[in-house]
Amino acid sequence: MNNTDIKSYMQNVGQQARAASRLIARADTATKNTALSAIAKAILRDEEKLLSANAKDLENAQAKGLEASLVDRLTLSTKGVTNMAEGLSQIAALTDPIGEISELSYRPSGIQVGKMRVPLGVIGIIYEARPNVTADAAGLCLKAGNAAILRGGSEAIYCNQAIANCVKEGLRIAGLPETAVQVIETIDRAAVGELITMQDYVDVIVPRGGKGLIERISNEARVPVIKHLDGVCHVYIDDQADFDKAIRISDNAKTQRYGTCNTMETLLIHQSIVSTILPTLSQIYFDKGVELRGDPTACALIPQINTATEEDWSEEYLAPILSIRVVDNLDQAIDHINQYGSQHTDTIVTENYTQARRFLREVDSSSVMVNTSTRFADGFEYGLGAEIGISTDKIHARGPVGLEGLTSQKYVVLGNGHIR
Amino acid sequence: MNNTDIKSYMQNVGQQARAASRLIARADTATKNTALSAIAKAILRDEEKLLSANAKDLENAQAKGLEASLVDRLTLSTKGVTNMAEGLSQIAALTDPIGEISELSYRPSGIQVGKMRVPLGVIGIIYEARPNVTADAAGLCLKAGNAAILRGGSEAIYCNQAIANCVKEGLRIAGLPETAVQVIETIDRAAVGELITMQDYVDVIVPRGGKGLIERISNEARVPVIKHLDGVCHVYIDDQADFDKAIRISDNAKTQRYGTCNTMETLLIHQSIVSTILPTLSQIYFDKGVELRGDPTACALIPQINTATEEDWSEEYLAPILSIRVVDNLDQAIDHINQYGSQHTDTIVTENYTQARRFLREVDSSSVMVNTSTRFADGFEYGLGAEIGISTDKIHARGPVGLEGLTSQKYVVLGNGHIR
Repeated sequence: MNNTDIKSYMQNVGQQARAASRLIARADTATKNTALSAIAKAILRDEEKLLSANAKDLENAQAKGLEASLVDRLTLSTKGVTNMAEGLSQIAALTDPIGEISELSYRPSGIQVGKMRVPLGVIGIIYEARPNVTADAAGLCLKAGNAAILRGGSEAIYCNQAIANCVKEGLRIAGLPETAVQVIETIDRAAVGELITMQDYVDVIVPRGGKGLIERISNEARVPVIKHLDGVCHVYIDDQADFDKAIRISDNAKTQRYGTCNTMETLLIHQSIVSTILPTLSQIYFDKGVELRGDPTACALIPQINTATEEDWSEEYLAPILSIRVVDNLDQAIDHINQYGSQHTDTIVTENYTQARRFLREVDSSSVMVNTSTRFADGFEYGLGAEIGISTDKIHARGPVGLEGLTSQKYVVLGNGHIR
Repeated sequence: MNNTDIKSYMQNVGQQARAASRLIARADTATKNTALSAIAKAILRDEEKLLSANAKDLENAQAKGLEASLVDRLTLSTKGVTNMAEGLSQIAALTDPIGEISELSYRPSGIQVGKMRVPLGVIGIIYEARPNVTADAAGLCLKAGNAAILRGGSEAIYCNQAIANCVKEGLRIAGLPETAVQVIETIDRAAVGELITMQDYVDVIVPRGGKGLIERISNEARVPVIKHLDGVCHVYIDDQADFDKAIRISDNAKTQRYGTCNTMETLLIHQSIVSTILPTLSQIYFDKGVELRGDPTACALIPQINTATEEDWSEEYLAPILSIRVVDNLDQAIDHINQYGSQHTDTIVTENYTQARRFLREVDSSSVMVNTSTRFADGFEYGLGAEIGISTDKIHARGPVGLEGLTSQKYVVLGNGHIR
């Protein structure tokens, strides 16, 4: 397709999505759940088709010399197929957020005013070559009454189309329009440029992928974007921390998984307890092969700690590297986090009520924690049931985004002939 | 100032706002209320200064030949000064939304997860030459813990600066940074271009003004915009409407005020009752000098009704003109509203439970009403206490936006040494 063709192809996708969104917004809970279950069933039945489509994608990827980590994400296993189907069944089991009326109360004028939760409309999702996202995103958008336009990484095109066929079948079985979930069929990048600028047809874009992808999309989008950039997360060990909790949390937050956005990247330690705790803690890290980069105080205390540079304080390592800074007090810890952090997830370890209360209020991050590993910042752990992503924005949705983040609220007003 | 100077001036304003936002976000309720009361007091004390600054603005405006309606909005009276001060006192009396923790509950892992309401950060407000907006917007942003950058119409520059001095005084008295509210001092339009693209320093833009201004800002902004475009509002008189309520609401929704965004612009009437109700209703409109533009059925029934064109159905008249369409049934009414309306405010007049229930669910507007005049769509009537604007967007805030629309929610997580 040339650019004119892509524009008209995308405009057509957008128009169909908008029309479908009106119907899916009205669909009742049972109908949406029927579709979700039917999609899950079709995915399990089509396991072989999905795996052979994926094999074709993998063959092409290897021919193109795709990096091992990307090939790894692209690979779909039998377990992966089962997980997709289970994910959809779990979404079916979630409470339907749509139509929920809250805060309905009488006003002095006599009218009743409340809010009703409603779908956003059309959601565009742009993601890397990860087949499971196709099923997850379709399921979440559908349950929240939205139409979805999915644009997965081009390397997964065959597998995505095979999954899309299952989605269409499920929608058809439930009597919903097949165009409620559309998978972009061209691998041309110009399609993304269209998707993120079709203000008439797309209500919000959710990009999932690396920082480069997300920055590019945010800069070029004319449609609102729910975005997730860095995860530079902190653990602050307060002077009144419980020693065992501090060790346990600092270890877990860094070493349970290195590559996730909620992994700790900088450890802050109160100066009055650093000589008590850092020897034990650094030994744990060294035993696990974690490189430590510290400020002068930390380096003076433990000679094996490398010297941190200014850049280290804002680095998202996603690797077995940890920067360590010794702070004078709580104020300095909070200032450090607000200055160098990415407003993602930060935790204080303390037994002191007032310090905990201040940390919770004053740290400006999407998740602020007390005596808890940062690794808990996750839609499932928070009870959202599922997660479309984590937002580091403040507008609309902040932190893990589940079904509710894919909805809006309108006002409902009930009267009995009331006039002004 | 040339463009380079304006850029550096605005960058400096942005940096100061960001720094001030950190301090104001932490300010406790009493401190913020002290500032609001002190501003109100300063405004009352400075009445003469404000009026003479306004006189200077009016003189310049008349010399430039500004339209009468704009001069009218620009004019500040003694009453206007009192209203500004009262508005600030009312904002002081509102419950502080910041720090409110909700939905805090235990998860199976043992952690407690909840949400805390937090400020957005820095709000940029762009508005026409209306001095009262300077005080209102400053007060709302302050109460919600945000820093504000205000850019009022250049015609009100002297008056805005006089008000800004009162705001600064109030902030100083409360021990808050004066830079928490900054009024842009250049009348150069390039300042707006900077303001709406300073992603590092501005979290959200609220434009208040005509559709042209808002469209231009939305198109050029790189910062999220809470915007209010058209108000093409409908009243639908159902076949099971109460006759008296239908007359009362249709009259009030159109004729109470013609120029407001929540005024009805199109009346939809069920075909089975049109011959009963339209003669009475059209007479009321004609007596008040309202021009009616109808579809063929309406025109056939009442010869004085002019013929509506396709354009009439999406027109926001803001004038004594009303378009009237006769519909076959509820479905057609809902489809008409969703197609031609502006997703602002729409009401059904009916005694039928099922029709009312369907209308509430299926009409995709920021306010959906039953047996109530559209004129009630307003922050004060909804109990928000104050209103920074009405959003016709779905993202973040929809409908009248009060203090809550100027906030976000972060997750708070409490544990006892919990790890994953």
